[in-house]
Amino acid sequence: MKLNIAVLPGDGIGPEVTAQAVKVLKAVAMEFDHLFTFQYGLIGASAIEKHNTPLPEETLSICKNADAILFGAIGTTAYDIDPNAKMRPEQGLLQLRKALDLYANIRPVVAYEELLNKSSLKKNKVKDTNLIIYRELTGGIYFGEKKLSEDGNEASDSCTYTRKEIERITHPAFKAAQARSKKVTLVDKANVLESSRLWRRVVQEIAPQYPDVTLNYMFIDNAANELIINPKQFDVILTENMFGDILSEEAGVIVGSIGLLASASLGDKHAMFEPVHGSYSPATNKGIANPIASILSAAMMLDHLGLDEEATRVRDGVGKSLKLHITTPDLNTKYDNISTTKVGDFIEDF
Amino acid sequence: MKLNIAVLPGDGIGPEVTAQAVKVLKAVAMEFDHLFTFQYGLIGASAIEKHNTPLPEETLSICKNADAILFGAIGTTAYDIDPNAKMRPEQGLLQLRKALDLYANIRPVVAYEELLNKSSLKKNKVKDTNLIIYRELTGGIYFGEKKLSEDGNEASDSCTYTRKEIERITHPAFKAAQARSKKVTLVDKANVLESSRLWRRVVQEIAPQYPDVTLNYMFIDNAANELIINPKQFDVILTENMFGDILSEEAGVIVGSIGLLASASLGDKHAMFEPVHGSYSPATNKGIANPIASILSAAMMLDHLGLDEEATRVRDGVGKSLKLHITTPDLNTKYDNISTTKVGDFIEDF
Ligand SMILES: CC(C)[C@H](C(=O)O)[C@@H](O)C(=O)O
Ligand SMILES: CC(C)[C@H](C(=O)O)[C@@H](O)C(=O)O
Repeated sequence: MKLNIAVLPGDGIGPEVTAQAVKVLKAVAMEFDHLFTFQYGLIGASAIEKHNTPLPEETLSICKNADAILFGAIGTTAYDIDPNAKMRPEQGLLQLRKALDLYANIRPVVAYEELLNKSSLKKNKVKDTNLIIYRELTGGIYFGEKKLSEDGNEASDSCTYTRKEIERITHPAFKAAQARSKKVTLVDKANVLESSRLWRRVVQEIAPQYPDVTLNYMFIDNAANELIINPKQFDVILTENMFGDILSEEAGVIVGSIGLLASASLGDKHAMFEPVHGSYSPATNKGIANPIASILSAAMMLDHLGLDEEATRVRDGVGKSLKLHITTPDLNTKYDNISTTKVGDFIEDF
Repeated sequence: MKLNIAVLPGDGIGPEVTAQAVKVLKAVAMEFDHLFTFQYGLIGASAIEKHNTPLPEETLSICKNADAILFGAIGTTAYDIDPNAKMRPEQGLLQLRKALDLYANIRPVVAYEELLNKSSLKKNKVKDTNLIIYRELTGGIYFGEKKLSEDGNEASDSCTYTRKEIERITHPAFKAAQARSKKVTLVDKANVLESSRLWRRVVQEIAPQYPDVTLNYMFIDNAANELIINPKQFDVILTENMFGDILSEEAGVIVGSIGLLASASLGDKHAMFEPVHGSYSPATNKGIANPIASILSAAMMLDHLGLDEEATRVRDGVGKSLKLHITTPDLNTKYDNISTTKVGDFIEDF
């Protein structure tokens, strides 16, 4: 198979973890006799530095012409703490999601047997957790109108959803549930938000089309609590953009490290794969960044492209690295000094 | 001391837990020779049933004339799942917060030595946690403009903040930090939201007035993760309305039960005290609701009224009930059948 993969390493630890995923993809191409070409694009702070925009035209066009996109991470501490920055690295990612209409962000959270001890939660809480978050990615407060009054004394963000936006993520979420444990939990704040009430209405209307799937509801505050006290209760979590952002990062505590969580961002025409974790600037180039989330994102890419055997090969490599404690310090209490690159090497060679 | 206390039991388990707190307050009044009068008001679903409004005029006027308000819980399952309800119980609480201008919601999260085993988190994670959340309570997306298009196909909520709204909660948060571990963590989503950027600007401007306090920043998604992997790092968490709602309910997992978390909602003229937990309709009148959050809210009320010794007396009673396992089933693995009322009786008699 000939595939054209866009690679956007981004900022902070993005480049180093992405490099490991690319390495693994190259090994897979060799082993299974594919031809993968990789085209690199700048995005985020590094793009601002070079091109004075967080999403250069060239990057966008590389992505538009690719079969799939591998994304690293975005943002730097300097921008993070500065509320007055004229341009923001994250805008690059948000614009890209919008431009490619990547409306479905899919984030699996699976407890690894080998890592039950690594979680902040007690073992019995974590064991057997296997949930997946369907986060709407191109609507809500992320993309609503933003205002700052002229005197700078008032600021606002609007959270808007349309029926269509809700429908097109609800169907894949229910379909996923059909192939899993047949349960969808809609997370919203329908007791307060008009947009959440629209979500409930639309999802309630669609649910009968999937009679084998049970639908239940949870308010976001309650969900943030239940996700920790009983993560096993969840199968598919369906939610809007901001709540999905919060819940999926929170879910990192279940599996033991946010450095393990992969995601796919899918639209009707394009597909992007990215770790759930951020750019963690302070960890940049120290060799301590966990490449597994990026490598598992590459596995999700292979799945998406129909290369199931290849994806399994990558996941087996990750499983083995966890079993043998070939992991970065966030997960490793057995060996010192297993670096980002060493983990990548191990999974590449597996 | 003569005090006039408004009591709004509300819905679900609200009445039964509030009854225990009132009982304890009466015992305190006896013991310390105070005259507490209690005036009851309807709010929420029960008010809708009787008066066709979630916040009757009479309730509001009882509250306005009270020295302090004790609030129970609001909402019922029927309303919770119905996105089309014409009137919503929660509106009663939101209107009350707004009418009394209760802008500062203060939620302490303290790990009890006796309960370290009850948390979903590992003991070493929980131990020594002592944080307090300052949640802005009368602004943000809760109170912004809400719209539903005529055809019902588009809905929106606006999240607005003014400099003044941010300032008036920031000062008490920094003052609280000065009397504690001298650390404020501002939680926002300044990489995406204009309103969050205003928060950062205003808080950055105010911080130098409290040179002994360290200010740091965290994005809400990251905070939802850090609250679990390292709750000890926090002292005062300062945040806007929605993020505070989410983080404070999530924090329930640290202490072992959301049934332990109390809160104060303070304005310049009025003060209300309420459990962080909700109305949990399915548990209503089963005798299993934990009254401690309500009783500790009463203790916060006593503190606020300057009755420190009395507040300590109540907290000691709670401490003792935890030590002796005189607790409801959410916390009790030792004895069966310790009911809401029995816990109240024990703390009353202590
Ligand atoms: C970097 C940031 C804008 C982004 C988001 O909030 O969506 C990130 O947290 C994520 O979850 O992908
Ligand atoms: C009942 C609901 C409107 C309320 C809120 O979201 O503020 C509750 O969750 C709380 O935290 O007091």
